[in-house]
Amino acid sequence: MSILIKEVELNGVATDIYIENKYIKQIGANLPVTADTVIDGRRKAVVPGFVNTHGHAAMTLFRGFGDDMPLMPWLEEKIWPNEAKLTKEDVYWGAKLACLEMIKSGTTTFFDMYHKFHATAEAVEEMGIRANISSACFDQFKPELTEKSKQTIQKLYNEMDRYSKRIHFSIGPHAIYTVSGELLQWADAFAREHNVLIQLHLAETEGEVENSVKNFGLTPVRYLYKLGVLSPRLLISHGIYVDDDEIRMLADHEVKVAHNPASNMKLASGMHFKFQEMREAGILVGLGTDGCSSSNNLDMIEAMKLASLLGKVWRKDPEAVTADEIFQSATVNGAAIANLKAGKIAEGYLADLSLIDLNMPAFTPNFNFISNLVYAANGNCIDTVICDGKVLMQNRKVPGEDEIMERAAQIAYNLIKR
Amino acid sequence: MSILIKEVELNGVATDIYIENKYIKQIGANLPVTADTVIDGRRKAVVPGFVNTHGHAAMTLFRGFGDDMPLMPWLEEKIWPNEAKLTKEDVYWGAKLACLEMIKSGTTTFFDMYHKFHATAEAVEEMGIRANISSACFDQFKPELTEKSKQTIQKLYNEMDRYSKRIHFSIGPHAIYTVSGELLQWADAFAREHNVLIQLHLAETEGEVENSVKNFGLTPVRYLYKLGVLSPRLLISHGIYVDDDEIRMLADHEVKVAHNPASNMKLASGMHFKFQEMREAGILVGLGTDGCSSSNNLDMIEAMKLASLLGKVWRKDPEAVTADEIFQSATVNGAAIANLKAGKIAEGYLADLSLIDLNMPAFTPNFNFISNLVYAANGNCIDTVICDGKVLMQNRKVPGEDEIMERAAQIAYNLIKR
Ligand SMILES: [Zn+2]
Ligand SMILES: [Zn+2]
Repeated sequence: MSILIKEVELNGVATDIYIENKYIKQIGANLPVTADTVIDGRRKAVVPGFVNTHGHAAMTLFRGFGDDMPLMPWLEEKIWPNEAKLTKEDVYWGAKLACLEMIKSGTTTFFDMYHKFHATAEAVEEMGIRANISSACFDQFKPELTEKSKQTIQKLYNEMDRYSKRIHFSIGPHAIYTVSGELLQWADAFAREHNVLIQLHLAETEGEVENSVKNFGLTPVRYLYKLGVLSPRLLISHGIYVDDDEIRMLADHEVKVAHNPASNMKLASGMHFKFQEMREAGILVGLGTDGCSSSNNLDMIEAMKLASLLGKVWRKDPEAVTADEIFQSATVNGAAIANLKAGKIAEGYLADLSLIDLNMPAFTPNFNFISNLVYAANGNCIDTVICDGKVLMQNRKVPGEDEIMERAAQIAYNLIKR
Repeated sequence: MSILIKEVELNGVATDIYIENKYIKQIGANLPVTADTVIDGRRKAVVPGFVNTHGHAAMTLFRGFGDDMPLMPWLEEKIWPNEAKLTKEDVYWGAKLACLEMIKSGTTTFFDMYHKFHATAEAVEEMGIRANISSACFDQFKPELTEKSKQTIQKLYNEMDRYSKRIHFSIGPHAIYTVSGELLQWADAFAREHNVLIQLHLAETEGEVENSVKNFGLTPVRYLYKLGVLSPRLLISHGIYVDDDEIRMLADHEVKVAHNPASNMKLASGMHFKFQEMREAGILVGLGTDGCSSSNNLDMIEAMKLASLLGKVWRKDPEAVTADEIFQSATVNGAAIANLKAGKIAEGYLADLSLIDLNMPAFTPNFNFISNLVYAANGNCIDTVICDGKVLMQNRKVPGEDEIMERAAQIAYNLIKR
């Protein structure tokens, strides 16, 4: 399986890109090669596939179901009762819809924490993108649930051989207010032993910090430090409420951070994400959308714009969070967090990439492509998506998209009636 | 000229809409009428055309030309030297590009303050949308320039009979730090006499407030109050730095306000726009994008999302600036500010409307159409645009769009080389 993209713009210059066996094999003008598939890249620019470092894919089913509500009534009346009813089939179609939406906006890898692990994994397998999937665990500080969570994690890990290499396993302790210190420590040991990641919501709201201080006597990052679970295998989502010393702790232990500006704004969690301090401390900061019930889409281009604009305005500094910096977060940093040789258009890297249609007002004029991408465009500029060396979308059409949307919508409407 | 839209979704119900002579004539299921043009509305929803209450259309030419820079070096090095070179033809193509971009994202009316009035007016005339256009005036507190500005305003006003009713005239004093009190008072009297609007940047930055206090002894709104120029004919843009008493003054005098979240965030001007207080005081708040050099697109759907998310996060209140409220700002409030019987899909209203393609992930599932529109979609969901009873776009294609993009890009590249 080989693909040749002819005369596509890369860093402002037209070039050919030759893809063979999942990898970018050669980049250069007028490559003297033939390929199974040839794609006309003229009036298009190539970018690495985006890596969405935090989300809950199947929550596409709850898009627009209860907005503009305070957090607890929304969770208690709208989300939790319906999540309790979710079947494997529901999650499967919700995740298919999420994959479709991500492909259509140029995302080729995503991190997931949700219920019905295999449903999401099967959807990802079929849709052709990559995911790092975790099953959300909540032991609620009850020893019997702690044991059950350990068994579930072990069992899922053992079942991973049924999937291709596009699907990675990780552990998904939900948050420090729903998961015991014992389970976090067990997860840390498991992650070290098997070299897998841990996804954890952390330092998302002021309320979480207050609770942490009340219950553990420490702020969230200090609590994890005391538990001994800060490590290069830990990916925290949100990380808004961290002080300078906590940033140092995260950096020292090579903890990764997923920034979710849309969710943090819409749920009014907080705006003061310390992008610059984290970067300067050497922390790998990725970008995420969070689930569709809090964000409400999976568009990483929109997430880049929100992160940059929010970072500028709260700091009162128009130079904060530049387009180039946030583009790095969305691509090469995300790929590094996912342990993939991806996120760059370079020979030897995984062929996970998108072609962007430049023939639209957002890229007119095109003085600075990255600026136009981040500040003027949105996910609909993505024309073609290739992941793992295979074409997933061309001319904005993904095979089977109408069926996915129809089925997922029906599932969502039925779910809330059940 | 008549148009019949068959089976389109309006407030969740399928209906027909019959348009005749610029107006929505009839709404109802299975209308027994024939029309010159029949549009299939199935799997589409109808919304009023958006009204962009603040911008500088031809600044599309500077899109992405100097981002992530501090304000003054950006203006002094990038924008002002190039604006000084602008010819009428440059502005004409820049404004055509802006109109194209607005049509493609569902805007049917915009407010403008820029140079080369007639170039913008001609572009609008040709593109078929509506605009309220002002020529930016700066007298820099120099009496000879004050006189010249008055003459220019009078002259432009006298020339308005060359345009259709889609084009309205307004006066565009740039800001209180570039325009003398005398010119503001003259503009106020002229506006009253001729029943036209005044567009003015006001209370945009902390620096502006400091200067106002230093130079006039008063904060911006109080200064205008003292000048006696607060009136129902005044539309201020930004209006971030206003206190409770100033909100009362604006409300008492029926001053209109244009909120520009993208610009306020990207330039780090400020985030604390008092949407709720202004609404409660009875002020008509419209939504705007500002010019493409500071925002960097003209997408009103994105502007709605930004306004809502920013409003929620700075207030720490997920119920602030709801989707319905900001949709009102972008439609019916904007139309009221523009003195148009528009902004609503109702019989007797101007036929300025868009059809939205529901067949995309952003509207799947579709529990709440307005929530999906504001929080999940972006300007690319607009499929068809009708303004003044004429079809301007169908299937996302605007006649002549490729030429407009090509010419505008060339003009922009040549401009910075001149
Ligand atoms: Zn989350
Ligand atoms: Zn402006």
